[in-house]
Amino acid sequence: MTIKDVAEFSGVSVSTVSRVLNQHPDVSEVVRGRVMDAVRELHYVPNNSARDLVKTRTDAIGVVVRGAENPFFTPVIRSIENAAEDAGYEMVLHQIQSGAGELEAAAALARSKRLNGLILLGGCYDYTPEQTAALGVPFVCCTYTNRFGRLDPASYSSVSIDDRAEAYRAVQLLLSRGHRAIAVLLDSVSDRSISQLRYQGYCEALRDAGVALDPALVAETVEFEMPAAYERTRRLLAEGPAFSALFAIADSMAIAAMKALSDAGRRVPEDCSVIAIDGIEMSRYTVPTLTTLIQPAETIGAQAVGILAEVLAGRGGSRHLRLETTLRPGGTLGAAETDRKAR
Amino acid sequence: MTIKDVAEFSGVSVSTVSRVLNQHPDVSEVVRGRVMDAVRELHYVPNNSARDLVKTRTDAIGVVVRGAENPFFTPVIRSIENAAEDAGYEMVLHQIQSGAGELEAAAALARSKRLNGLILLGGCYDYTPEQTAALGVPFVCCTYTNRFGRLDPASYSSVSIDDRAEAYRAVQLLLSRGHRAIAVLLDSVSDRSISQLRYQGYCEALRDAGVALDPALVAETVEFEMPAAYERTRRLLAEGPAFSALFAIADSMAIAAMKALSDAGRRVPEDCSVIAIDGIEMSRYTVPTLTTLIQPAETIGAQAVGILAEVLAGRGGSRHLRLETTLRPGGTLGAAETDRKAR
Repeated sequence: MTIKDVAEFSGVSVSTVSRVLNQHPDVSEVVRGRVMDAVRELHYVPNNSARDLVKTRTDAIGVVVRGAENPFFTPVIRSIENAAEDAGYEMVLHQIQSGAGELEAAAALARSKRLNGLILLGGCYDYTPEQTAALGVPFVCCTYTNRFGRLDPASYSSVSIDDRAEAYRAVQLLLSRGHRAIAVLLDSVSDRSISQLRYQGYCEALRDAGVALDPALVAETVEFEMPAAYERTRRLLAEGPAFSALFAIADSMAIAAMKALSDAGRRVPEDCSVIAIDGIEMSRYTVPTLTTLIQPAETIGAQAVGILAEVLAGRGGSRHLRLETTLRPGGTLGAAETDRKAR
Repeated sequence: MTIKDVAEFSGVSVSTVSRVLNQHPDVSEVVRGRVMDAVRELHYVPNNSARDLVKTRTDAIGVVVRGAENPFFTPVIRSIENAAEDAGYEMVLHQIQSGAGELEAAAALARSKRLNGLILLGGCYDYTPEQTAALGVPFVCCTYTNRFGRLDPASYSSVSIDDRAEAYRAVQLLLSRGHRAIAVLLDSVSDRSISQLRYQGYCEALRDAGVALDPALVAETVEFEMPAAYERTRRLLAEGPAFSALFAIADSMAIAAMKALSDAGRRVPEDCSVIAIDGIEMSRYTVPTLTTLIQPAETIGAQAVGILAEVLAGRGGSRHLRLETTLRPGGTLGAAETDRKAR
């Protein structure tokens, strides 16, 4: 059974069958249906092994995902997959735990799969040149950049938002509604990573508004998971000072915090406003809808592939792309009547 | 730089370093920290390529995930990964779109990666022997089984819940609270898949309780995504007959439905009770907490690997494991005062 049999059976050309099998968008639904009927009828299995043999090994890129449970990564991975296929690259996906070392995993993957390039999705912000040298191929930091490390910007690429500036914007939105006692929910103030950067934005927004930082309103969870965010918010409500607004550095943490607020009898936004950064799908369905700064997840993934493809083709050098978020108003922002409302 | 250097530097044995690098659980945190410090200090990269060359190719299993956006799959995939590593198998993960053909993808993967076995995560319930013959290796249907197909049970394995029985149980919980006008939110009543099976359970529970089926309370979404579930519930509320309870076949659909209920001014559970099946993490954080039948996601993944490993080792034949859900009471079930409450 060959692709020619499928083409004859369905009455279309071999190249049309190939386009259908490779899920190209430029095929009508009618033709696609006819070809897939033939594929099923004839029990045809596309011979990717043969294709693998014909292809050189130089067109594979690896994607190392650290923290695949992070729902924000789901649309990013899908967009990387689509962009890689469109660009003619085989994609090798490798998932590691949140705490694991992505550089070690990426270096091993690059060697064992003979990859030409790497996309690191979710990793550290403080690489050293010695560490990344082990990768041996061009790489793109996707959703983050090397803000705390010593890498020469010309030695790698990155696609991310400006975490500090976006956090500043989120907190400013709370300040503009009159909030002064604003809590922040984050992993850590000093993780040399996304959490620290967004904390910087929080501090700067308060400072520029002339609001003194209250360390008792800085709620560190240590781990990123939702149960930790819930528990930390519960403790903040039980033991901390009053606050009328909360900035969570991630949507998933905000959703857990809203649950803790509800369980403590505090209404959102009447008793406490909530804002976050990310824009995961689930945050559209909270009651009320979470007000958040939506990261352009699809664009982040597609641009990471685009930049890497340019570098691999020798058509461009390293690039560092900063993308902007989009505010989804939602329903979790209210005006501050008094700073003591959340108590 | 070899593993011996790391062992010497950190003052532990080579086998301890190996256990740390392979993320075995039986290493103390102190030792793990010391070894990882040495790995970082020495910029050591574990030589998985070498290990790949030494290993025979017979210990790789493929996992084809259909619909990776489905949040229920996240803990299943993680548990498959862990179990595969514990069993000494290399895992090749391949993700395809919800609508794509998992058998074609699995067959191609099995050949190109020379896999010894396959786990299909999320797929069709109506395979034919001709279709699955193309796989060429033992396979396990994970989270589903071949209820509508013509496969000889001895020719494959499966790990799943009993969808019909669990749906029956969910609807019975609503009936026991006095509800009679019970809507069902599902993809399709005739998709020869999970949705049809859970719809059967819904119908049987109503029948056994002497409640007539009202076709106008059967809300099909056609697609599985949350926006479709939201929109279909909104339309049911606007155009359908009154109902005091809703059974959603999946947590994610229930969360979207709760949002639609809230947007329409209906309180959960006072105006409408909601129950679902799955137990995704996010459903613990809805307000109120979703009442749902939790699938044993970790066990499902681990058992799929376990059964496949037994088959590959020649120690066992095909098996079909049915696991039970666990009720999480949550807060979305209320008593029916009248059938007209939801209007």
